[in-house]
Amino acid sequence: METTPARARTHQPCAACRMLRRRCDVNCILAPYFPGDEPEEFAGVHKVFGASNVIKMIQMVEERSREDAAKALVYEAKARMRDPVYGSAGTIFQLQKTVQQLKAQLESTNARALELQQQKDQMLSIFS
Amino acid sequence: METTPARARTHQPCAACRMLRRRCDVNCILAPYFPGDEPEEFAGVHKVFGASNVIKMIQMVEERSREDAAKALVYEAKARMRDPVYGSAGTIFQLQKTVQQLKAQLESTNARALELQQQKDQMLSIFS
Repeated sequence: METTPARARTHQPCAACRMLRRRCDVNCILAPYFPGDEPEEFAGVHKVFGASNVIKMIQMVEERSREDAAKALVYEAKARMRDPVYGSAGTIFQLQKTVQQLKAQLESTNARALELQQQKDQMLSIFS
Repeated sequence: METTPARARTHQPCAACRMLRRRCDVNCILAPYFPGDEPEEFAGVHKVFGASNVIKMIQMVEERSREDAAKALVYEAKARMRDPVYGSAGTIFQLQKTVQQLKAQLESTNARALELQQQKDQMLSIFS
């Protein structure tokens, strides 16, 4: 009689094992981050990074950071599929441009506020 | 007698072919973007995306966009090696936070400038 533990017997294959057509047991490193009912997230990281690279990149970070690492990989894969030329680097360049624009606006508004403050102080000193 | 064209004979292997130990000829799709004298850039994208994925991702974009695509992949690979948990997604989250902070500062400075303008207008109407 087989002595497979109940948990292993009832374990649902994760999206990674399902796609790679391999056995998924309770020790599967990807199972917590790529549940079987969300196959498109693993399909994305597999397409962009390749399954073996994803496993290596998840393995190389501490267990408590693996969920964040998996989410970041999913995010980057989606960005690359949406924009095959610039990927998430494109989002970074765009955000850097926005930061520069906002800094320039802030500088100009600060200068305007300072100018108004000086005019106000001057008027107060004249009429006081 | 061999009839290999002079260009193919003198072609220096690119960083990709050098690392993958394969023949690099003038038709090599990666050669223009990964010169042999900059091996660390290809080593990075190979480690993060895998050589075959890099080739696929370069191939799938139009020729005029390939240089940008290669640069973006190098950028993303460097970001992931520098931050193995968040990679370039981490840079995006950080920049999004900076954008939010700058927007809040700008809103507050705009309100301050408006307030000063109103005070100045009020003083001018009183003393004119």
